[in-house]
Amino acid sequence: MEGEPTLRLQIFDLNCWAIRYLSKRRQERVRLIGDTLRQEHFDLVLLQEVWSEQDYNDLKVKLAGSHPFSHYFRSGVIGSGLCIFSRFPILDTLLYQYSLNGYPYMLQHGDWFCGKSVGLVIMKISGIIFNVYVTHLHAEYCRDKDAYLPHRLVQAWELAQFIRHTSKAADVVLLGGDLNMHPEDVGIRLLRGWTGLQDAFAEATHFEGCKNGCTLVPDNCFTDKSELLPFPLGIRIDYILYKAISSFTVKCEELKTTTGPAPGMGIPFSDHEAVMATLHIQRQGRPVGATLGTADLALADVVTEAQTEVGMGLQAAQRQRYSWGRMAVLALLLLLLQAAAVLGTLAGLGAQQPFPKLSFCLLAFLALGVFVLATGLHLFHTMEVKILHGTKDQMRMALRALQERP
Amino acid sequence: MEGEPTLRLQIFDLNCWAIRYLSKRRQERVRLIGDTLRQEHFDLVLLQEVWSEQDYNDLKVKLAGSHPFSHYFRSGVIGSGLCIFSRFPILDTLLYQYSLNGYPYMLQHGDWFCGKSVGLVIMKISGIIFNVYVTHLHAEYCRDKDAYLPHRLVQAWELAQFIRHTSKAADVVLLGGDLNMHPEDVGIRLLRGWTGLQDAFAEATHFEGCKNGCTLVPDNCFTDKSELLPFPLGIRIDYILYKAISSFTVKCEELKTTTGPAPGMGIPFSDHEAVMATLHIQRQGRPVGATLGTADLALADVVTEAQTEVGMGLQAAQRQRYSWGRMAVLALLLLLLQAAAVLGTLAGLGAQQPFPKLSFCLLAFLALGVFVLATGLHLFHTMEVKILHGTKDQMRMALRALQERP
Repeated sequence: MEGEPTLRLQIFDLNCWAIRYLSKRRQERVRLIGDTLRQEHFDLVLLQEVWSEQDYNDLKVKLAGSHPFSHYFRSGVIGSGLCIFSRFPILDTLLYQYSLNGYPYMLQHGDWFCGKSVGLVIMKISGIIFNVYVTHLHAEYCRDKDAYLPHRLVQAWELAQFIRHTSKAADVVLLGGDLNMHPEDVGIRLLRGWTGLQDAFAEATHFEGCKNGCTLVPDNCFTDKSELLPFPLGIRIDYILYKAISSFTVKCEELKTTTGPAPGMGIPFSDHEAVMATLHIQRQGRPVGATLGTADLALADVVTEAQTEVGMGLQAAQRQRYSWGRMAVLALLLLLLQAAAVLGTLAGLGAQQPFPKLSFCLLAFLALGVFVLATGLHLFHTMEVKILHGTKDQMRMALRALQERP
Repeated sequence: MEGEPTLRLQIFDLNCWAIRYLSKRRQERVRLIGDTLRQEHFDLVLLQEVWSEQDYNDLKVKLAGSHPFSHYFRSGVIGSGLCIFSRFPILDTLLYQYSLNGYPYMLQHGDWFCGKSVGLVIMKISGIIFNVYVTHLHAEYCRDKDAYLPHRLVQAWELAQFIRHTSKAADVVLLGGDLNMHPEDVGIRLLRGWTGLQDAFAEATHFEGCKNGCTLVPDNCFTDKSELLPFPLGIRIDYILYKAISSFTVKCEELKTTTGPAPGMGIPFSDHEAVMATLHIQRQGRPVGATLGTADLALADVVTEAQTEVGMGLQAAQRQRYSWGRMAVLALLLLLLQAAAVLGTLAGLGAQQPFPKLSFCLLAFLALGVFVLATGLHLFHTMEVKILHGTKDQMRMALRALQERP
């Protein structure tokens, strides 16, 4: 079986930072990305933050010759921002939108409006079935006090579960995307441990690019330097992960990242660096074995850690649900009180209306506004509680399964 | 291979109509369902509309001896209402929440708040891997002018896609639930055609129960008789569907429905009738063949029909998005105009404030309210447009794949 031919696959992954009206020099950069991809010989191109469908269509036209197959994943108000271009036919697709993705009232962060998702594309290349996943998880705005950690952990868990459940007929699994997690973060360990995915950077025989494989670096003219102050070399949050499921082996021959400005150009592709991997896929005599017992123990620790974080998120969500519910009830009481006062005046119980009409009306409108808003937020946090609770339960079930394994 | 032992599986499916504060004689009925299930010998129990987690917990306690394994699926504001009880261990679970599920402002229908989903439970029984799905699709409130048809079709499509993508390692697939579609409806044909699932009622060797297998019948004291006027026998909207994926055959030996009051009791379990199937699963020599060419043609017709309906839903959603967007812009203009008037008065441009203060303030609050509401609805319909558009695209891709098959 050693003599079986090897399939060599080149993959390009990039968070394009193509937000209409907001991202700097967007159209110029999208053109640059398109021109580069047309000239280079990547088999698969996984893109994130292509928020504008027009940008996708422009890329599609430009890459019609080199990458005739593509898919754009639609979700949320703004979109998922995910798309994929391929030299090989796409057989099937599926989109899974994460159950939690920040808060609609955090307008300055805006993640909620994006409908963050994982997109799956199925391809058959040289008789090998590939399940290719592209995703983008919730951003991290403050590492020291990360209010979104429980949401990102739910996303990492749902991503892992989605991959496990949908990849059972695949020979090879590939995942590319902006995971918004550092390599040692609990979410990455959970995702990798629960799916068995390997990190192309860690496995690469040859590496070329930013030190430590960083993909958000101070040398890039578009990055926010103040955010990167604690990390002088930058951070690694964009990944290409892979694994072989059936009787195949996958090896990462080479991993590269861009290093600021695109080759021969004055500007970078994006505020993120692109990740480019060259993978070798070969048929093996026998399927790769399941996870070892020692790995199970380490995984159980990771799941426990994640479960604790999700539990803390659950408590915070329950507090929020309670506060907004109480606020809604108070506003309703005030409204009822005012209604009683009006009815009393109409019935001639009081000598005359005791409040100036204007203040009375303003107060009523204020109470109504608070009631509507607080009710909406109470309902939103109720949903959040349900999902966090459900995820915690699933993790507990996973832990039990891990502990019961012989 | 003919001599291989047969596995006999008894399945119980019921929409429990257990809405807290709203459903009649809820607690009495939940107790009755629990008592019956404890005495009967069902291997799998698939329940819908168990909205209260307390009811689930009560059932769990009651069924601890007969059905020691169970799972409750959490989602949405109220919950998914889905749960499963089993005599066999549950190995893994996954929840997929449908992308579209009615409108939050249709409070009288309330589907949006339920987080309608499909739940998957994986089990291994006698060495056979079962993927068991339980679901509940959006209700049909007016059959002649069904505004929710596009949403229900998106759900049927997502259900079919979810089953196809997650069942590849399964030997047998089972689906139970309230699909809110009549047997000949386009959504059922789409689901069955795209997944290859068979209808237990149509395949059953022996049937016993309401005529035509109806599950919402006028004889049930809890059903709304006026809704069933056009259907004197009732309608069939609750299903048990199945298929064998690998080298197994599944046969439905017997299908039963309840017929109003539960045996020996004065009241029915629910406003729906329960569906009970006895399946025979046997190992076969060779895997069952793929869909035939003629079936492909019929399936292409169904997908085309569904695509047309989704396209009409897309147009309606685009119109709604446009109207609410325009309304938001008009409200904003009014607010700006009022702000300009106030500034003008403050700057002493006008001789005096031309409007009475009270009406002016009321108008401003009204404009603000309309602006917030219209913006919210505009965003909601933008999401709806994205999902309908994405589904239409996926259906087009499926059609192309069907037409390109040799």
